[in-house]
Amino acid sequence: MMNRRSFFTHCLGAVLALSLGALLPSAGWASSPYLPSFYKAPKYVFFFLGDGMSASQIQATEAYITTINGGSARVAEDLLKPENRLNMSKMPVNGMQTTFDAFALMTDSASSATAFGAGIKTKSGVIGMDENLMRSVKSVAELAHERGMKVGVLSSVPLNHATPAAYYASVTSRGLYNNIGVQMAESGYEFFGGGGLLAATGPARDGDTSHNLWELLGAHGYELRNDRESILALRDNPRDKVVAINPVLAGGQSMPYAIDRPADNLSLAEMTEVAIANLSGTRGPGVDRGFFIMVEGGKIDWSGHANDAMANIGDILDFDAAIGKALEFFNQHPNETLIIVTGDHETGGMTIGHATTGYTAYYDRLLGQPNSYEYFQNVHWAAHKEAHEGGYDWTRPDNLASTPEMVALIEQQFGLVWDELNAYQQQKLEDAYDMSMVGENRNNSAENRFLYGGYEPIVVTLTHVLNEEASIGWTSYAHTGVPVPVFAQGRAAGLFAGFYDNTDIAKRLARIMRLPEMPVYRD
Amino acid sequence: MMNRRSFFTHCLGAVLALSLGALLPSAGWASSPYLPSFYKAPKYVFFFLGDGMSASQIQATEAYITTINGGSARVAEDLLKPENRLNMSKMPVNGMQTTFDAFALMTDSASSATAFGAGIKTKSGVIGMDENLMRSVKSVAELAHERGMKVGVLSSVPLNHATPAAYYASVTSRGLYNNIGVQMAESGYEFFGGGGLLAATGPARDGDTSHNLWELLGAHGYELRNDRESILALRDNPRDKVVAINPVLAGGQSMPYAIDRPADNLSLAEMTEVAIANLSGTRGPGVDRGFFIMVEGGKIDWSGHANDAMANIGDILDFDAAIGKALEFFNQHPNETLIIVTGDHETGGMTIGHATTGYTAYYDRLLGQPNSYEYFQNVHWAAHKEAHEGGYDWTRPDNLASTPEMVALIEQQFGLVWDELNAYQQQKLEDAYDMSMVGENRNNSAENRFLYGGYEPIVVTLTHVLNEEASIGWTSYAHTGVPVPVFAQGRAAGLFAGFYDNTDIAKRLARIMRLPEMPVYRD
Repeated sequence: MMNRRSFFTHCLGAVLALSLGALLPSAGWASSPYLPSFYKAPKYVFFFLGDGMSASQIQATEAYITTINGGSARVAEDLLKPENRLNMSKMPVNGMQTTFDAFALMTDSASSATAFGAGIKTKSGVIGMDENLMRSVKSVAELAHERGMKVGVLSSVPLNHATPAAYYASVTSRGLYNNIGVQMAESGYEFFGGGGLLAATGPARDGDTSHNLWELLGAHGYELRNDRESILALRDNPRDKVVAINPVLAGGQSMPYAIDRPADNLSLAEMTEVAIANLSGTRGPGVDRGFFIMVEGGKIDWSGHANDAMANIGDILDFDAAIGKALEFFNQHPNETLIIVTGDHETGGMTIGHATTGYTAYYDRLLGQPNSYEYFQNVHWAAHKEAHEGGYDWTRPDNLASTPEMVALIEQQFGLVWDELNAYQQQKLEDAYDMSMVGENRNNSAENRFLYGGYEPIVVTLTHVLNEEASIGWTSYAHTGVPVPVFAQGRAAGLFAGFYDNTDIAKRLARIMRLPEMPVYRD
Repeated sequence: MMNRRSFFTHCLGAVLALSLGALLPSAGWASSPYLPSFYKAPKYVFFFLGDGMSASQIQATEAYITTINGGSARVAEDLLKPENRLNMSKMPVNGMQTTFDAFALMTDSASSATAFGAGIKTKSGVIGMDENLMRSVKSVAELAHERGMKVGVLSSVPLNHATPAAYYASVTSRGLYNNIGVQMAESGYEFFGGGGLLAATGPARDGDTSHNLWELLGAHGYELRNDRESILALRDNPRDKVVAINPVLAGGQSMPYAIDRPADNLSLAEMTEVAIANLSGTRGPGVDRGFFIMVEGGKIDWSGHANDAMANIGDILDFDAAIGKALEFFNQHPNETLIIVTGDHETGGMTIGHATTGYTAYYDRLLGQPNSYEYFQNVHWAAHKEAHEGGYDWTRPDNLASTPEMVALIEQQFGLVWDELNAYQQQKLEDAYDMSMVGENRNNSAENRFLYGGYEPIVVTLTHVLNEEASIGWTSYAHTGVPVPVFAQGRAAGLFAGFYDNTDIAKRLARIMRLPEMPVYRD
């Protein structure tokens, strides 16, 4: 239960948000002059971005939590218990945003981050620049930093990946990782944490000079920490400028999926806790102007692309635990803190239902998968394939069924009992096994593109079959265009009620933080 | 732009909703005593229920409107134009609700309507009774009627179907149509309109006596109208108790899909306009206590089950036009009117993206389908099948491709050019054609269940292929469990902001309308 001060904090937002919404149901909110003169901006602002997270991912995760907590995903009484809900879904303010970008109904993460970070629509792949690649814009973080707020940028994917980059960089293409890294080093932000760096020693593209980003970060005063103990030590001994990178990284310089987390790594929640401690309070002389912290759960998206519900849910749980750390801070500073949570787009076309299972949910079946598709592929599948190469004839109809080690493996790693699968599921797995073993099967290439996307056929087919057995469906390996929920709590949180565009998030946030009106061009 | 009075109308809700939300983010709102004594209930309440409508359906429809209005579903500037948005999505208040029922993550329409109509969770298939089938509950409509408000119940599906029934009936099973019809006749509600009646002359089930519902309705003072002119005439000459049924009905006593609408029928929007006129104002002596009108867009759901995006979008457009009629009324009575719009659940697992099209939307491709799957099946497919029966050999791989009339038909009726389809799409259509022609194809039965659900194979495969070509995916033939948006406008509309359970809708609405606390048992 909140205290009296936080009640009034919410109230202010409530009055402002809904009364403005009533006046201007579809017009541009940001141009209205309604924030009263007595209004004081929040000192501490958290922006949590679940990359690829929309309502389906949230509901799937809550059905999963209900199941592991001993309840049933089929029982409303269990699903409604507060302990089976995510932190984000219990926040008092809820809104919804459209996510399309300048030229795509299905946005990419670069253009969407430019929208909610800097308030403009741009084209897919572009970071912090307009759709003509002519003008660059400043992000909420950059403007906050200019006002003396400390800034933290955290992500489970590389720190120069699209979403974090939109908070400090302007580039024509998200692929210019070395160039983005240079802008990261020049940002002056106080804290970066999570995954690693892509193209850390080059190459640069587009004719730019390659830089060694590690050296450049050091030259700009950043201290690099990359072991668990020294990063955790920042909680008690904060530093002025830190880059905190987990010691163990998975594919693409990202943090491993939360369900695969090595003991040596920090979770996203722990990294968030460190960032909060490192950025709180005053050190030495000078006024403490608070902080702006952006935390991206970046591999919610990656697991959505791969259509792996368990990896997806695991990363949402870690992301939501990070939100829990912000809520602990909020409870200490209720009148000065604002927390916003949203996604940039949905990924994978996840839905809470499948033709195979109809009206019945079987989330207990998900418990059969202990690790992500990525871990399974790199460890179990790689070993199996190596042990069974040679003499493989893909025209045989029962290669998988007649390989006891593989039948045992899919039961151990996905809980799928071969004899209990229906004929269509068995057939899909046989086809995928052939394809993964020798690159050929009986399907035409269009069907294989549909069935596997760019993923390892047997691996993505295993998550497809497990997910459909659990009652979770997927329609795509890409982003989708479904509107995304927004949750908010704290000072002026009510301004995030309503249904609006993703660019309105930056506009509203800038207004709440008393920053210049969005968008702010660099000329 | 709203006037000053409607501004204050919204404001009241804003203050109440968000401040209560802040105090009780996850607790039961309905038990809190915070409505102030000066608060006055709205005189006119509209509840619009898009059966099977969630955020994906709304976004797909807006992308479609953008396309037919000459814009592009790939251009943000076009998608954001007010004329390309639905009435509902421009409302000032937005919320989100969980939809699961007592024992299912994927609710059915009976239990969900019992939830948002009467404030209790029950099990699938049950209307207006608790999960043990022991106690029955009164709906918001029934309580409003007891207070002297007039009540109108409109639906594009039969008037004794699950959703409308939950507003006047309590039965152990939604299939007890004759029994439900008896309760409809006894309801005393002033207006019923839209589709027809199921089991109108029996049989009753569960040992009940069968009734002729037409005679019973007459005996209870209802006047039956079922031609366009006499129904439209109600606008100028309202009657006390009317059942207005469209003259032309499609399968299951429902109104034909909006895109198939015969000129003799009223649209759901026209029927809503008639209901408003018929229920407005005082006739004879007595006080005018206003009205409660429930309008269900019921075939949004049916087309979702069938995975037909065009029929789905057409019925959302008609449903949204009905909302437009309520908004016209709102503009005349802004201080006394409340409009709520939501769905009961999502149907079909629709998503705004597909593996086939990735990041690119092609809504213009939908324009190739002029009618619903149902119309195509009953008219074009039936004629084709009859003309081509006999001598069919399903083991031939190219039955469809070698039948020029069928190749021409799918181009005429779905805009699908055979030679432009990929090999997988062609193969799926060949298999479906075999199955629809002679009930056999090369697939195992599990694959056929997945591909066709219970639908006519060639018909559902045609909508699948067209939809995926447009970038719309489906995962199920059933309902799904994704949370559903809520939109609201008018007096105390702000109370529908936030993320809450479907039962909270009834609880909040009863509170707003100054009705007894929900749920209200009949003992």
